[in-house]
Order: sequence, then C-alpha cells, then structure tokens
Amino acid sequence: MPYSNTQLQYKIDHKTKPPGSLGRLEEIALQVGAIQESLNPRINRPHILVFAGDHGIAATGLVNPYPQAVTAQMVLNFINGGAAINVFCRQHNIGLFIIDAGVNAKFENISSPQFISSKIGFGTKNYLKEPAMSGDEVRESMEKGKDIIARVRADGCNCVGFGEMGIGNTSAAALIMSAITGLHVEECVGKGTGVNREQMEQKIKTLQTVYNKHINSMSRPPSPLEVLQTFGGFEIAMMTGAYIEAAKRKMVIVVDGFICTAALLIANLMHATVSDHCIFAHTSEEKGHEKMLHYLNARPLLNLQMRLGEGTGAALAIPLIQSAVKFVEEMASFEAAGVSNRE
Amino acid sequence: MPYSNTQLQYKIDHKTKPPGSLGRLEEIALQVGAIQESLNPRINRPHILVFAGDHGIAATGLVNPYPQAVTAQMVLNFINGGAAINVFCRQHNIGLFIIDAGVNAKFENISSPQFISSKIGFGTKNYLKEPAMSGDEVRESMEKGKDIIARVRADGCNCVGFGEMGIGNTSAAALIMSAITGLHVEECVGKGTGVNREQMEQKIKTLQTVYNKHINSMSRPPSPLEVLQTFGGFEIAMMTGAYIEAAKRKMVIVVDGFICTAALLIANLMHATVSDHCIFAHTSEEKGHEKMLHYLNARPLLNLQMRLGEGTGAALAIPLIQSAVKFVEEMASFEAAGVSNRE
Repeated sequence: MPYSNTQLQYKIDHKTKPPGSLGRLEEIALQVGAIQESLNPRINRPHILVFAGDHGIAATGLVNPYPQAVTAQMVLNFINGGAAINVFCRQHNIGLFIIDAGVNAKFENISSPQFISSKIGFGTKNYLKEPAMSGDEVRESMEKGKDIIARVRADGCNCVGFGEMGIGNTSAAALIMSAITGLHVEECVGKGTGVNREQMEQKIKTLQTVYNKHINSMSRPPSPLEVLQTFGGFEIAMMTGAYIEAAKRKMVIVVDGFICTAALLIANLMHATVSDHCIFAHTSEEKGHEKMLHYLNARPLLNLQMRLGEGTGAALAIPLIQSAVKFVEEMASFEAAGVSNRE
Repeated sequence: MPYSNTQLQYKIDHKTKPPGSLGRLEEIALQVGAIQESLNPRINRPHILVFAGDHGIAATGLVNPYPQAVTAQMVLNFINGGAAINVFCRQHNIGLFIIDAGVNAKFENISSPQFISSKIGFGTKNYLKEPAMSGDEVRESMEKGKDIIARVRADGCNCVGFGEMGIGNTSAAALIMSAITGLHVEECVGKGTGVNREQMEQKIKTLQTVYNKHINSMSRPPSPLEVLQTFGGFEIAMMTGAYIEAAKRKMVIVVDGFICTAALLIANLMHATVSDHCIFAHTSEEKGHEKMLHYLNARPLLNLQMRLGEGTGAALAIPLIQSAVKFVEEMASFEAAGVSNRE
C-alpha cells in the first residue's frame, strides 16, 4: 500500500485501544512512518555513534573542572565497555561506535571493532586566540561524519543516535547556541560536568570574551559554517555532517543532549529538513538545553534530569521509539481480535 | 558489605561520570538499593500482572462509551497476545499474567499459562443502588491478590508492575480518589476511554450522585476498607492486597496509571510503608492522575500522554529501572578505568 499519513493514522486508530491512548508513541509511529514513507515503520539495527574530540580552550582550565586528559581516558573506557553508554547499549542491543574525531592523544593498537579512527587533529585551537578550526578542518570533519553514516546505513541501520565526549564541549555548544539563537551567552552557559559557582562565573566571563572577540568579524547574522568553524569542535562538525547525511538517507535520528542539539542547530540551517527526521530523546539538565529545544519547537520523550552526554539520553529513548513501531506492527485490530469498538 | 545508603551513594559517585549526572536513574538505584537493602541492587524476572474485573455501573452505560463486553473481549485479546501490554512485555522480556478478578463472562478452556482464574464474581454491583462489593468479597479479593504475589515472588520475581482492565473502572477510581483525598468528585473524573463532552457531564453527574448517596453513611473520614467496598471493584481490591503483599516481601513495585494509583491510595492507608516500595511509572493523561500523584508526593519517570491502562506505562518504565541498577552493576569506577576525577 502506498504511504499516506491518513492511512497510517487509520491503522493506528483501529488497534485495540481507545484512539489516542498511546499518546506520544502514536505521534512517534506517525513520524517514523512519514520518514520511511511506510505504513509498516520499522527500527532496524539502531546505533549510537559517540564522537570524541578535544577543545583548545580546555587546556587553559578556564571552563572545565575535569582535565583535558579525561576525553582520551573516557574514549578508552568506552572501548573497554565501562561507561554508561556501554551499559545502556548492551541493555537494549543498540550498536555502538566510538569515533576519534580529534582527541588530543594517540590511540595505538586499538583492535576493537567499535573504534573508528577519524582524527582531524589533536584538539581544536583555543578560540580565546583564534577560530577553533580552519575551513578545511570543518569540511573534512563534516565529510567524515557523512562517511560514517554511509557505513552504518549500508550495514542495515535505519535509526541513529549521536553522542559525544569532549572536555570543554559544553562551552563550544553554548557559544554556538548564542550565535545561532541570539540569546545572550550567559543564558546559554551551564554547569557542564559540574563547575561550582566561582568556576561558573569564570566560565561565563571567558565565553563572553570569546564571543565578543569573534562576533564582529562574522557575517550578520553569522553563517552556520562560520559559527561552526569559530566556536565548534571536530566532534561537533562531524556530527553536523552526520545529521545531514542521515536525513538525506531517510534515517530516524535520535537527538541526545546539549552538545548534540547544538550541532543540530547548525545542521538544520545548512539543510532545512534535517529536523523532520529527528526525535528528541530527552531534556538535559544542562541549563541551555531547554531553551535550545524550545527554539527548535522540540518536545523530547524523556526528562530524567540527566546531563551526562555520551548519547545516554538517546540510548534510553530508543526503546520507546521501538515500542512505537512495534505496537503498529504487532497489536491486533478491533476487527481481528473481535473487540467491540465504541458504540 | 552491609547495606547503607551512604555506601551505595559512594559507589554511585565513583562511577565514571560527573556526580549526579544520571539524574533520576541515580535516585532509582538508591531506592531499589534501600528496598533490597543491598549495595548490588538487581531487577530479577520483572512481571506485569493485569487484573481484570467488571463494574455494575458499566451495564447502565451512564459512564462508559465502550460496552461492558469489552472487558472480557480484551481479556481474550491479552491471552492471544494482541494488546499493547503484550507488545511491550514481549519487547522487554517482562513476564505477564492476566488475572480474571471478576469479569462478567465465563472463561472456559483457556489453556494459556499466562491466565490466572481468581474470579470473585461476575462483575460488582451497581453502586448507584448499593455498595459495589460485600465485605467478604473485598477480603477474598485482597487475599487472592496476596496469593498471586506470593506465587510470582516464589518464582524469582522481585519487581512487579500492576495493570488493569475493566470497563467503568476510571469511575471507581475517581470515587476512591475523591473519598480519600477530599477533592471534589468533579476534579477526579476524567475522560476514561474517551467520553465526549456530553457524556462527560453525565459521567460527573452520575458519580456525584453515587458519592452523595454513600458518603454520609460512612465513617468520617471514611476508612480505606469502606471506600474500597463501596466504590471499588474486584480488580482494584485484588491490586490493593497485591500492593501490600509485594511491599511486605520487599519487592520493587511499579505503579501504572489512574486506576492502579487509586488502589495504591487505599493500600497505602492500610499499610503505611507500601509507597516506599513504589516507583511511579508515568503521568497518565486521565485527568485526575496528576493530582493523585501530587497527593502521594510522587514523581513519575515518564510523561508520554498515555491513558491506556493495562500496565502499559509500567512496562515502558521497567527498562529505565533496569538501566538504573545496571549502571551501578556494570559501569567502571574512576579508579578501575584509570579516568581522572575532578581536580
């Protein structure tokens, strides 16, 4: 049967339940049906891709309570299966790849099939002094992100969530958010991994300085590419490319927290239909995320007051998306089950 | 190691993540640890028990758009695996039992191992005329609920969610809510399976009449047993007994929607520590549920605008509870993973 939204709605409404009673799951089923142009939406081989990269600003210690070395240490933790994202992906049989987009460390003799080496550089430049990346680095990052999507898609995956790891990347995300949405830097900056009050003041002050330094030399409004190059990171640029490619390939995209949503702000300006493919996993506790979601008119599935990153929110939301397509696939209709519909 | 909350908090805080960054999952891990008095909380063989019963009021058609026969038809749908709760339990490997607590139909030649016959009667009496149940019926219902818990507990289950099916049972739940919380009947009555505006007015008017008829002959405040007997149903009374027994056996209880929470209001008055064992799955769209949760000081895990019953909210929340205990079990500590903690 050719796809139409009305046909899928009809199918949903004839399942043995009061109309609308599965709430958001019904909306998700319709969205996945529209993405796949199918009355039989399916989630096949879902994956989380964790993009890791370092940020020049983090070496200064001005914005982050954890040392920059933690990015590389956590990449090894991901590879060894000891992080939260590993636990949740194992629980739900979600494929997981860890991508070195630009960590400030050499990963040698890594034999894990989950590890993808796509290193653009050993961390970005410090944007207190100069733009984080060169134009070539941004383009190369985006291309590699597209390549990774092509690879998982070819492997049968039609649903992808992104995660990230990068000490300092809440700062990059806050600057991107401010530049794209026009909200003040202060409204976009949150605790990240957990700065105290004094560190928070320093973080805001530092990022306001960075913002002021660059904003006047950018277009008005700044182009998404300028924003990405100046404030972004290798992992953010790689996600941006990945978002665009996943949308082009009609995949279901599961959007995680603050940094992933910042990358989406950019991707969505570059390719306007990206957000039609997005299911928003959760509202992060990171301060700016709720406003970012509001800007995108997004209604996430979960609010568990998490702020870990790594794609953990996406991994917890994927089973709900699977529930949405499974009820359409597996539930009996009133007719088939011999259940009386409303009088 | 003997259990202490502080020890479990220490264990959680040494996992490779910023402290508190798993939000509600960390709270759930602590709650399950406290219930099990264990630093190694586990969810074993989770089950959903769907209690089905008919209500005398439903035969009048005054409160329900679906005919009473739908209760029995849906029981067969559960047994045949075609309802939403079947889909979600299969998805998450959750055990499922369907209990005939008092459906107005004979179930003969049912060979399914998922079906439990505990019939108290062929539907309750119409509370427009007399109390829904006799004292003996309430006691017998509660005892059977306790027996069913003993059975699943003996089978290795330490986590149980309840679900229900019963045309007319949102009315019973609304009356219970009003009698226990003191809120006006009108504030407690919602759309149920989906009445229209005119039907809603009739539902409120009918239930106000029922309330007025009985409330003055009850104690002040009415005892939980009186409320249960007068306004409840066989499935609600069976759940009440099941809640109490599950708490006594230190099980994790997953609370579903409006009707299940109404049964908990009663159980909690009979046995004050029941709610310590409860994890609230979701906020139902059924109008009174949010106020009921507020009354219990409960913060549910999900809000997916669902209002289906059957335990569907509980089934979707169980994986989150499993995630909470799994991260405690499986994540590496900073020390073990060689990850630097905060400076």
